[in-house]
Order: sequence, then C-alpha cells, then structure tokens
Amino acid sequence: METNKSLINHYKKIRHFTEELCEPLKIEDYAVQAGLEVSPPKWHLAHTTWFFETLVLKPYVENYQVFHPDYDYLLNSYYEKLGTFLRRDLRGILSRPEIHEIYEYRNYLDQHMIELMETLDLHKDNEQCKKIFSLIELGLNHEQQHHEGLLADIKYNFWMNPLRPAYKRMEKPADFKRTSYSSSSPAWLEFSGGLVQIGQDGTGFSFDNETPQHKIWLEDYSLCTRPVTNGEFLQFMADGGYRKSEFWLSDGWKVIQQEEWEAPLYWEKIDGKWSVFTLSGMKEIEEDAPICHVSYYEAAAYANWAGKRLPTEGEWENAVINSEIDIKGNFIESGLYHPSPSIVMNNGLAQMYGDVWEWTASSYTPYPRSKPLPDIAGEYNHKFMCNQVVLRGGSCTTPISHIRPTYRNYFHPDKRKQFSGFRLAEDID
Amino acid sequence: METNKSLINHYKKIRHFTEELCEPLKIEDYAVQAGLEVSPPKWHLAHTTWFFETLVLKPYVENYQVFHPDYDYLLNSYYEKLGTFLRRDLRGILSRPEIHEIYEYRNYLDQHMIELMETLDLHKDNEQCKKIFSLIELGLNHEQQHHEGLLADIKYNFWMNPLRPAYKRMEKPADFKRTSYSSSSPAWLEFSGGLVQIGQDGTGFSFDNETPQHKIWLEDYSLCTRPVTNGEFLQFMADGGYRKSEFWLSDGWKVIQQEEWEAPLYWEKIDGKWSVFTLSGMKEIEEDAPICHVSYYEAAAYANWAGKRLPTEGEWENAVINSEIDIKGNFIESGLYHPSPSIVMNNGLAQMYGDVWEWTASSYTPYPRSKPLPDIAGEYNHKFMCNQVVLRGGSCTTPISHIRPTYRNYFHPDKRKQFSGFRLAEDID
Amino acid sequence: METNKSLINHYKKIRHFTEELCEPLKIEDYAVQAGLEVSPPKWHLAHTTWFFETLVLKPYVENYQVFHPDYDYLLNSYYEKLGTFLRRDLRGILSRPEIHEIYEYRNYLDQHMIELMETLDLHKDNEQCKKIFSLIELGLNHEQQHHEGLLADIKYNFWMNPLRPAYKRMEKPADFKRTSYSSSSPAWLEFSGGLVQIGQDGTGFSFDNETPQHKIWLEDYSLCTRPVTNGEFLQFMADGGYRKSEFWLSDGWKVIQQEEWEAPLYWEKIDGKWSVFTLSGMKEIEEDAPICHVSYYEAAAYANWAGKRLPTEGEWENAVINSEIDIKGNFIESGLYHPSPSIVMNNGLAQMYGDVWEWTASSYTPYPRSKPLPDIAGEYNHKFMCNQVVLRGGSCTTPISHIRPTYRNYFHPDKRKQFSGFRLAEDID
Amino acid sequence: METNKSLINHYKKIRHFTEELCEPLKIEDYAVQAGLEVSPPKWHLAHTTWFFETLVLKPYVENYQVFHPDYDYLLNSYYEKLGTFLRRDLRGILSRPEIHEIYEYRNYLDQHMIELMETLDLHKDNEQCKKIFSLIELGLNHEQQHHEGLLADIKYNFWMNPLRPAYKRMEKPADFKRTSYSSSSPAWLEFSGGLVQIGQDGTGFSFDNETPQHKIWLEDYSLCTRPVTNGEFLQFMADGGYRKSEFWLSDGWKVIQQEEWEAPLYWEKIDGKWSVFTLSGMKEIEEDAPICHVSYYEAAAYANWAGKRLPTEGEWENAVINSEIDIKGNFIESGLYHPSPSIVMNNGLAQMYGDVWEWTASSYTPYPRSKPLPDIAGEYNHKFMCNQVVLRGGSCTTPISHIRPTYRNYFHPDKRKQFSGFRLAEDID
Repeated sequence: METNKSLINHYKKIRHFTEELCEPLKIEDYAVQAGLEVSPPKWHLAHTTWFFETLVLKPYVENYQVFHPDYDYLLNSYYEKLGTFLRRDLRGILSRPEIHEIYEYRNYLDQHMIELMETLDLHKDNEQCKKIFSLIELGLNHEQQHHEGLLADIKYNFWMNPLRPAYKRMEKPADFKRTSYSSSSPAWLEFSGGLVQIGQDGTGFSFDNETPQHKIWLEDYSLCTRPVTNGEFLQFMADGGYRKSEFWLSDGWKVIQQEEWEAPLYWEKIDGKWSVFTLSGMKEIEEDAPICHVSYYEAAAYANWAGKRLPTEGEWENAVINSEIDIKGNFIESGLYHPSPSIVMNNGLAQMYGDVWEWTASSYTPYPRSKPLPDIAGEYNHKFMCNQVVLRGGSCTTPISHIRPTYRNYFHPDKRKQFSGFRLAEDID
Repeated sequence: METNKSLINHYKKIRHFTEELCEPLKIEDYAVQAGLEVSPPKWHLAHTTWFFETLVLKPYVENYQVFHPDYDYLLNSYYEKLGTFLRRDLRGILSRPEIHEIYEYRNYLDQHMIELMETLDLHKDNEQCKKIFSLIELGLNHEQQHHEGLLADIKYNFWMNPLRPAYKRMEKPADFKRTSYSSSSPAWLEFSGGLVQIGQDGTGFSFDNETPQHKIWLEDYSLCTRPVTNGEFLQFMADGGYRKSEFWLSDGWKVIQQEEWEAPLYWEKIDGKWSVFTLSGMKEIEEDAPICHVSYYEAAAYANWAGKRLPTEGEWENAVINSEIDIKGNFIESGLYHPSPSIVMNNGLAQMYGDVWEWTASSYTPYPRSKPLPDIAGEYNHKFMCNQVVLRGGSCTTPISHIRPTYRNYFHPDKRKQFSGFRLAEDID
Repeated sequence: METNKSLINHYKKIRHFTEELCEPLKIEDYAVQAGLEVSPPKWHLAHTTWFFETLVLKPYVENYQVFHPDYDYLLNSYYEKLGTFLRRDLRGILSRPEIHEIYEYRNYLDQHMIELMETLDLHKDNEQCKKIFSLIELGLNHEQQHHEGLLADIKYNFWMNPLRPAYKRMEKPADFKRTSYSSSSPAWLEFSGGLVQIGQDGTGFSFDNETPQHKIWLEDYSLCTRPVTNGEFLQFMADGGYRKSEFWLSDGWKVIQQEEWEAPLYWEKIDGKWSVFTLSGMKEIEEDAPICHVSYYEAAAYANWAGKRLPTEGEWENAVINSEIDIKGNFIESGLYHPSPSIVMNNGLAQMYGDVWEWTASSYTPYPRSKPLPDIAGEYNHKFMCNQVVLRGGSCTTPISHIRPTYRNYFHPDKRKQFSGFRLAEDID
Repeated sequence: METNKSLINHYKKIRHFTEELCEPLKIEDYAVQAGLEVSPPKWHLAHTTWFFETLVLKPYVENYQVFHPDYDYLLNSYYEKLGTFLRRDLRGILSRPEIHEIYEYRNYLDQHMIELMETLDLHKDNEQCKKIFSLIELGLNHEQQHHEGLLADIKYNFWMNPLRPAYKRMEKPADFKRTSYSSSSPAWLEFSGGLVQIGQDGTGFSFDNETPQHKIWLEDYSLCTRPVTNGEFLQFMADGGYRKSEFWLSDGWKVIQQEEWEAPLYWEKIDGKWSVFTLSGMKEIEEDAPICHVSYYEAAAYANWAGKRLPTEGEWENAVINSEIDIKGNFIESGLYHPSPSIVMNNGLAQMYGDVWEWTASSYTPYPRSKPLPDIAGEYNHKFMCNQVVLRGGSCTTPISHIRPTYRNYFHPDKRKQFSGFRLAEDID
C-alpha cells in the first residue's frame, strides 16, 4: 500500500517528466498546432494541470482559489458537463498565456496537490480519501497519456514545418544494435482457445474501460511472434498495396483516395528511396523495425494482402497472460522515441509491449456490465465507444509504468499520428 | 429441394414485386435523388438487373450480349474490381436511359435469366450449376434488399419536396386497429446466458456475413418485450434529451449539433405538435407504435437516459432462437409501410421481427473464421465491416421471406433513412 | 406604338418559343439539375410563368386567384422581399409538380395575361396601364433570357450524363458552310476615342442596368475584327497557356488549379484529339469558329498571352454605334445553337452580335445616376453589381429581338456555362 | 534628389519601424496565425526582408549568398514565377526559424543593403542604378504596407484569443480630446465634374497601379465632409440594417447570412451594449469616430439605407486634388492605432486622409494603358485586378509618408480585417 510520501514522489516524478519532455523545445515551439487534432505542447502542459485542478482541488479542497478564471474555458478538452470550451482547432492561437505563466500554473497546482496529498488518509476506511486517491491516480495516468500525446504532437508539428527540425538528436544505445530477431522470417505461436477471462479484476489501477473482468470464448489461434516490419510492409507497397482496392475496407479505400496516401505517415521518398521522419530528424528505413504510423485501414489491408488477419483484443490479451509475458521493451524511458528491431524474445513472443501500439480487429465497445466512472470522469472513456478500434501493448513513447495487459487504447481507424503498428494472427484449422 | 419451375416462379415473383412497388410513381419520380445517399427509383430498377447480368449471365452464359455497353459504368454500385463507375452523388442526373428503356432492360435480362434457369441442373452434383444457383439466390436476396431501399429512398425524396407528396394513401387494415400491447408499460423477459451458438449453420441461404455458426459467451440478461415507442421517446425529448450532452456518445453529440437534430427523421412540429411524414403523407404520431427513423446515436442516448442499454446482437439472436419466435409481423406485405403498435405477443416478445430494424450494441465485424464469397461477390459485405453497427429483425419494409434469426443488417451510426428503431436490454444481477 | 393585338401576339410568340425549345426533351429530362447553378427545364418553364403571376397578375388584377399556393415558395429565384424560397441546389428534387401540371400552369397564366392585355389601355395617358405594360415587357425580356438559360442548362445536364445524349441533331444550313472570314488571320480596326456617350437613351425597352445614357472618355483604340477562334485558342493551349501562371489573374490561377481546368468547358480529349460537346452531340473542333464556354479568367489569360487586352464595355458599345453595325448574325433563330465561323463582315467587324457573348474588361457596376426599378423588380439587376464582369453582343442562343447595342450581360468571372467567348482590343500609340 | 546618405537613413528608419512595432510582443505572439488570411508577425518581419533579398540583392549583387536556402520556399507570399511556396494557411506552424534567427536575417540583409546603397550611383544616368533605386523604393513601400498589415494581423490574433490581450495600452493624446467636428450632423460639399485627370503623373514614387495619369469624365457630385460615424452606423443597425435584404448586394447578403454578421468586426455586445476591441483592449464605442472594420458589403448596404451612394475613386481623387487637401491626420505615427473623431477641417473636408481607408464604388481594374512592372515585380498589383474594390486615403495604421492622393488600396468586398470605413457621396441634380 502506498504511503503519502511514495504517492507524492510518484506524483512529482510523473509531473516532472512532462516538463522534461519539453526541455528540447524553443519557446516558439510551445504554441504550434499543425493540424486540427494536434494540441500545442503548452496546451498539454496546461490541460494536464487543469485536469487535477478540476477533478481534485476544486471539488475536494475547501476554499481552493483557481489560478485563473478563464482557464476552464481554455483548457477543457471535451468535458461537456463543465460548459462550453475553446474549439479544438483554435488551441494554436493561444500565444497567451505565455509559457512562463503555464509553468507558474503548474507550480501553483503542484503545491496545492502536494499539500493535499500530505494530509490524505490513505490507510483508513475513509471514503472521501479513497475517492481523492482514485482521482489522483486517474490524473497521473491521464498525464502519462499526455506524455505520449506530447511527443506525437511535437513530431507532427515538426514534420509539417518545411525545415523539418529535429526534436532531439538521439543515438540508439549500444544494446539496441545487436542483430535482431525481427530480421528473420516471422514465426507463429499457437494458443488454445476456450472460455477465457479478459479485463481487469479490480486490483490495482485501471481505466473504467478495462473492467470488469469477464468471460469470452476463443477458438484456437496463432499469433506471429513479432509485429509486421518495415521490410514486410515495403513488399506490400511494392506489390501495389495502396493501389489495389481488393485489399481495403470500403471506408479505408475512400480515405487513401482522398488523402492520396501511398505510404505510412512520415515516410518520404527522397531520390527514389523511402526515408522516415523521426523525432531525431530524417532517417533511413530500418527494414527489421516494426512498421509504425499506419492506420487501422492500412493494417487491415496488409493483413488481407498477406492472407492473414489481425488478432482480436481478446486473443492479444489471452496471449500475454497465458505466456506470462513480462512488461519490458522499448518504452519512452529508452529515449529512442522510435520503434526498433526487437532484441529480446519474451516467452516466444517479441515486442508485445512497447515499440508500437498494435491495432486489433476489435471495435472499441464497452465490456459487458462496464460502467463509466461517476461525475465528470464519466466522460473519460465511454462516450468514445463508437467508430474506434482497440490497440494494445503500448509504444516506444509509452511510460513503462503506464501499460498493463488489460490496457485498451483506441483511435478512429484513419488515425496515424500515434506510434501505431500491428501484428498478424491466424486461425488454426 | 427446389425444382426449376419453383425457382423460376420465385425469381419472377421477386423481380415483379420491384416493379409493383414502382407503380404509384409518376415518370418524373423515377429519377430523383434528394440526398447523396439516395438512389433514384430508376437506378434501383436498373442496378438490380445489372447485378444478375454481371454476376450470372456474363460469366456463365456463353455468348451473352450485354444490353448496353455503358450500363456497367452507370449501374455499378461499389464493385471496385469491375473498374470505375459513376459517382454515387450523380445518380440523379440520369434522365437517360429513359424509364421505358430500363423496363426493356429488365425484360431482356429476365428472358435470359429464365432461359438459364430452365436448363439449370439443380439436383445432380454439378458444381457449376450449384454456383449459378447460389448466385441467383444472392441476386434475389439482393433484389429484396432493394425493395426496402426503394421505399426508403422514395420516402426521402418525397420528404425533401416541399409539396410533400404521398407515395400511396394506405389504410391500416382493421386487425391493426385493436388495442395494442404496446400501449401498456414495458415488461421484461429474462434469458439465461452461458455458452451459446449464433450465426448460420449453413443450411439454407444466408449472406456470407452470417456465417459461420460459432460459440459466444453470454451473461444472463433481460430484454424489453417490445421496442421503445413513440410515446416513450417523446418523454426523452420532453426531458431535454436532444439538449443534454451527458446521454450522448461523443461522435453522436457532434452530429446532432451540426445537423441541428431535435427529433427523429421525418418528424415535423406543426402548430406546436409533432407529426410524422409517412409514405401515406403526414400523420399524427401514434404513441404506442415503435419509434422509427432514429440513428444509433439516438438509440444509445435514449438507452443512457433510460438507465438501460441496447442488446448485443448475440443477445438478440439468442433470444429469438431460445424463445422459438415465429417470423411473423408487420412486413412489407402488410402494405402499411409504417411501424404499427403491436397486435401480437410471440412467446412473450413482441415485434422482434418486422416494424423496425433494431439497433444493437454490436459493431459490424466479421464472425470468427468468416470468409467473404469468392470473386466479385466478395465485395458484397466484408469490406463494409468498419464503422458500422448491426441491426436485427427486419422492418415494415422488409419482405417476410427475406428475414432470418441470423440476419445482420448494418448502417453507419448516424444513418436514419431506413426504418430503424430499437429495443432495450438490461443486465441481471 | 403597339396595339393590344400586336402585344398579345408578341407575348404568345415568346411564351410559345419557350415550350418549343422543350419539345426535344423526354419527360425524364425536365427535372434534372446536374450542377448547383443549373435549373431543371421544368423549373424554367414554371419560374417564367410565376414571374408574370407575381409581378403583373397578383398586384394588378383584382381577385386574381394564384394557380397553386406553394408555387411562390418553389419558383421564386432570388426575390428576397417576397420571403423565403427553395434553396437553389434543391430545384432538381421537384419531381412534383409533374410536367403536365407545369404546362397547365402556363396555360392558366396565359389565359389571364391575355385577358388583361386585351383590356389594357395602351394609348392614353394611363399611369397604371403604362406600368403594367412595362412589367409585361420586363416579363417577356425575362422569358427571353430564360431561352438562353434553358439551352445552357440542358447542355450542361446532358454533358454530365455519361451517355452524353444529344438534345437535337442539327444540320448546319448550307449558307453556313462557305469559306469564312474567320479563317484568315485577324485584322484590326481603329476607333477614335474622345468624349462619347453610352447607355440607353430611354426610347424603347431596356433593362434598368443600361440606363441612363451618359458620357465617358475613351482613348483611341483598335478592335480585332472578329472574336478569338478555336484555332487561336489551341495555340495558347499548345504554348502551355493553362500551366503558366504569368498569364493569369491571381483568382483565376486558383480556380484552374482547383478545378483542374486544362481546356474550355465541354472540350474533351478523345484519342489525343480535342472534341467538343454541343447540343447536337460530340463534334470535331472547328478551328475558325469563335472560342466558346470560356471564363473571364481564360479570356484575360489569353489576352495577356497574346500581348493584347480585352475591350472595355464602352469601347465595345462605341464601336458598334460608331460603325452602325446591324443586328444580324448567328442567333437562337438559326437553330444551330453553336458558334460558327463568320460568314459576313458588318462594316468591317464580324460577329459583334451573336455567336458568343464577349467578355469585356469592365466590372459590372452601376452607370452614373443609375436607379433600380421600383418594388420587386428592383432586385432584378442592381443587387448583382459586385464581383461580376460585363459581356456584350449576345450569342447563338440569344433571341435576335432580345439584343441591343446597350445590352449588358454579366457573369461571375469563373463561369463558363453560358456561350461566352471574347474579342481582343489594343491601344493605339 | 536623394543622396546615398538620405536614402540609407530613409531605409533604416522604415526597416527599424517594423521592429519597433513588434516591441510590445512576447516571443509567443510572433508565430500566431489566427485565421487563413492572417500572417504571423514573424512572417511579416521575414517576408519583407526576403523581398529585398529576392528583388534587389540576388539579381544585382554579385556573389550574394542567401541567408538560408529554404527561406525562398517559406517566405514567398505569392510570386508564382519563383516557384512553389508554403501554403498561406500554414504560416502559423513556423515555430522555426526562431525569432532571433529572423532578426539575424534582418541584420544580415540590412548590412548587405546598406553596402549596396553606399555604392549606388544615384545622380548619373546609370540605368542599372536607376532600376535598383526603383526596386529599393518599391521594397520600402512594400515594408510600409506591412506596417499596416502587422497591426491588422496582431489585432486579429489577439481578438481571437479568448483572453483578449491588449497589444499596447495607449492613451489618447490631449489634443485628440477636443470637441470634434464629427459630432455635428454631416455637411455636404459640392464638386464640379467635367473632364478631369486622375492617376500618377510619373513624378515621385507610385505603384504601377496608379499610372498612367489619364482623363475621366465626371458629373457634378457632392461628398459628405466626413466619414460615416459609429453613431450613424448604430442607427442603421437599430433600423434592422443587418436583417433587411433590401439594402444588400446579393453576394453581401449571402456573406452576412453565412457568417452571421450583425455588427462590424471587433464589435461585441456586453451586457446589451456594444463595445469594440482595439489594440489597447476593449473600449466603449465613440459615437463620433468613423466607423471602422466594415466590409464593402456593409458600406454599400449603409449607403442604400441612407439613400446615398459611395463615391467613385475618380470623385474621391478629384476632390482632394481640387480642394488641395494637405496630407495630415490620424496616421500610424499618432500611436493611437484607432480611428478618432476629427479634430480638423481641411478645406472643408475632414479625414480624407488617415483614420479609415474609405471604400469607393470602384472596382479595382487597370487604368487605361496601365502596364505592370517588369519581371517579378509585375506580380505585385495587376494580377489582383479582379473581384476587388478600391479604397482611398489611408488609415490610422498607415505611415504618413506612404500615402498619396493617387494611392489605390484594394480588398475583396467581404474583407474587414483592415481599418476600413467609408464616406457617402451624392448626385447633384
């Protein structure tokens, strides 16, 4: 069980990491919004702060004075219950508040949060303290989600700038340079189906979309031991993958026509050769690294082309639990911020965690008997359970402490801004 | 087993019914396309004909001469493999071919089809004949889907015309006028869950999206014995249902803001009172008839408001199989073309079939091990398995011979043009 | 001075001609609207009728009963003072009223108009009769404008239909086949400038935008003796005219990029050769016929490329008055409905009238002291005096009795649906 | 005649003033683009620099090294001849180059420009030096246009920020506070028409759109002695000006419907009272200050409502020349950056210069025999001579040395971002 001190340390670490991620930025970089679905870095810094202020301090700290009366309007992302808020596509016009004011806001909030956490009764059966603790946990997990969001948005902003600035020149650490498993041809691992359980059993933190634990029926299936690689995806492209309608979902085919996609996001053909934009700048394609920044449509088209399919989220979760896969791999802590060829096998499966979020075949719908959190937090997850697809396993920009076997990420099927790839599955006759 | 004669009769009956549905139309009405997703009646007549020509006659009848070389371009709906085709939003400009030419096309096709069917060897183990027979079955089911489509599109076209013409003045038959079950308050029927089977077992015709039969796990659940009624939906509206974000999926809330929806499609407030446009013209709202022409978003919002949920398609299918519900009810054959208060209970459940398609909570995804049909027919269903939601049970515009317990209809969640309503479900503690 | 009988005959002739133009149409063709700015033929028939009903019968005939109470809403084109009306882009959904109802409406109106005209006191100093007479004249000129509009819209509708039906197979009369003046290289005719008068002097009918007659100052100038031909325009195209920004107005360059224009409207490259769609179907390009269906942007770009300029409307009008050009040429009465190589010189200038409307360099702005007509007719012209460009001289679809030296036609500079071409001018040093 | 020293001083003064205008900005403010037609302040700073580099240094200084190879792509506004350039709507994503880099760019350019100007032979008959001198003059006038542009764009950016920051808190100087002429009811001054000359005679700098001087014919007319005031415009609004179609041009009526305009830009109703956003923040409306930030459509609608009209640009220019109006008034040098009630009469006419650009009735078209400048500078003006309307007289953000009687400014008729108002004219019977 947590002590107040460990909670505060945990809080400080996560909050500090957000700011650390912003260190390579110039003041000018903080306000950029290069696309409708991008948030400027300063907005990430402020919104995560507002989240604690709104869910924790305002309702639970008597006489708490908000830092600024207009921030509710500026920093609310999508909580309709709280009233009107700034249109999402206008976040990029916020030259004010200045960045130093945002940092003052963060400090102000942190002081009040720490004060609150110092007095929190974590051990007794205090309903109010339990509730506050839950909301703090939620706020910290929310902030960790924004760690990923920050890097994804910075990457997109820099990509849209014709100068293509690098966020940070990063060197791959020596131990990432070994000959990797990924370069060999893919192997398949079989799993027995039957009546299995998925979902969070209620011990430890989870989002409300991972609960409750429940039974599903699975047929026997096999999973590829690693995600699809750049090299494999290049074969799909070479075979006219983006030009042949027969591989594509109807909605996907429309998107690639309209957007004129002919490669994953961030790929650029220079002198007839594909390169890729990374947070370190333009790089050569590494053939045995996982394919990244593809949409669900591209994942599904590839699977059709390959004569395989994507795994369901149940198959994915059953595999990691069944194989007792350890949570290790290429996460945000590696400092690479880019998927890498696998260096380890983990009970026969490589890269289930880290590197790239894996698109599954599962629509994002509520688990049986799933209930949204009460109050404002109820808008966190359930209202998005339509038109989206589940991804599993975390990516090279996910904090390692943030991922779980039951973690359900989700995007609309045309989105590619996040570090998303996929792995193939197959039926067993 | 079918005889050639019964097959031909079946074919003639379904083909003829399409034309019968067009009888009330004026020549002018055949070409109208009042919305991007509406097809003009003449296009329905021609496209269903083209479907047989393309899937059956061209590949399987030697030396078959197509009726017109340009029809492939004009009448292809979405079969990408066959090459480019007319943009969907331009179907309304086809004043030519004239309607008499379309009927000549239908006659030409029917003659060739009947010739083919006369010589078809239905009984022996002839692979080619089996294949042709399957494609004819597919074509006939396809044409029945267009029976619904025709009425839905005519209704929309007439609704958009400020004169609001009636398609056909229809009188409700006497036996529809009895005091109905629907007017009483809703009752609930409990179902035991467990490991159950859903999907088509391969006997009799089904679309490829209904197969294979497979196991799923269900928790115990209860279903409302009838669909939500107009009267109930009016209470939701009176309670500010369309103005309170908390009931809505995020994507749904966007849609109702943007489209300024404040009632189901075809509802119009006249002198402070809601009326509804029907194929018989404007009518008073019948409080105990099922709510109709609502989107998935509205169904889901109502369920949230009511503190219930929509059933999954597995729960729906399990209920009708478990209760051995007969396929009877208010179908296209009633000639009403409008949902009606229920007049019968069917093993405790009313209106599972007919009246309104029922939105389920299930995303339209492939069943485990489901395979699309070979060749062009492969584009019939599977490529749409994204961003859509399953509906069950048929409506007042569905031919009775077309519906099955396993039948999966699907629309994007914002669509309301079809006769779609919903029924509530509930967990059992 | 007109007699009642001659007025009635004139009325009947013009009204009848509208219907004559519709004779080649099938019932299906009457309702098509293949673009946002196209009106269906049936709408032309009805709207011109409504115009008389609204401006003449309703205000001036006691106890006049309108034919249908909803037609005001359906048939008002843009008279805001009369209240709301059907969105322009929805005219194509009007399958009802049926075409026979529209003709009944025309007959009904004509009977009432003729009754009125029979009793009209044309000779005495009766203010009310003068006013009614003016409005009838306006209504007839309005109907003549719709003669052009009808053919332009039918042409566009048929062009958009992939079958490309012909409106009417027309043979060029023998006397159009002579070797034409247009095939020789262009000659230039000089005109002295100075203080000249343009605009209508108040004798005879004119629209309110042609008045009052007023002085303008002109420098000496020369005009090309004929409009730019297809052959010349092909040279512009061959020289990369559509790909070189330097010839284009900024707004024009945007339009051709966005619309991907690379030739005039109705031109189609078939087997590497340009053909043109006409009301008689696809034809070879006649090199010495005037270029047609070009926008102002294309006219201005061509003039820049040629090192010349377009004439102002003052220069154009001064030239025809100064040269006493007769009003004769290729008008709607020729039955060609397509520009033709010139067969006559008219005081040194060919084709000033007929064949193609000629884009001028003049913005459509009010003449000094110009006043709009009173009441509803005030919305006829002046409210469009912004963002439009003046064209002069009539086209091959203009009725000959409709054109005058002072006639000002006008379109937005990106429009090409009408029969519009241009002639070059030059400064004299 | 200029000396090299005076030229250099003039250059330094204008270039320095650009930077002075940016002094109140925070680093964050430099990159904001709050609308498609806004440029971020940093882009103004860089683009004006690029203009000199591209038109002067690159072609005329041997071995000149450009500051950065990518700036051509980033900073080209609309010179198509120079190749592709950054989409206008993406200027706001340029967090890089950083603002200090932009200032380094300015210094680098200034050093090279000063070196060049030191050696320029201004007195002898050196064609090349004359040409360079002309281009420097053009570059300086271009930079002065951006002085206005900068303030207009900063104002718009700050307006869109919900915090509504003030650019600079400015106090009106004492002598602006006297009882003003504007508060009295408007007076009218008559002018004789006849054959007059307008346009630049070739002495002194002018843009190519002001030449050549040429004759026009004017009827007698009168001008209001001052622009329309806020107080008068409030009467128009109170009389339903924005809701009555009869005052509006058709294109204007569409715009105000679509954009839901019901007041000038920057007006905001707070507690039932109109206030206005200025570069000093929100202010009360001053009733006797000129109306500002209205479009041509609003100006024309007001004139219709008032039963008057807008003057043509010929009338305006003839009035100031005829009355020998001095160029003085409320220009950018006043530091007010906001129109003010008039304090002076200038030969009977107030505020012909300064305060607000005055919309005229004249379309922006080339003067007779007008020729664009050679080379790239040819894209400066003439390619915009379509769909735009002329404004005259400069505004409270125009540098006084930048304005002339012949100066023609121009905007599309729906634009309101610049400091634009208007003055009424009237015919004399």
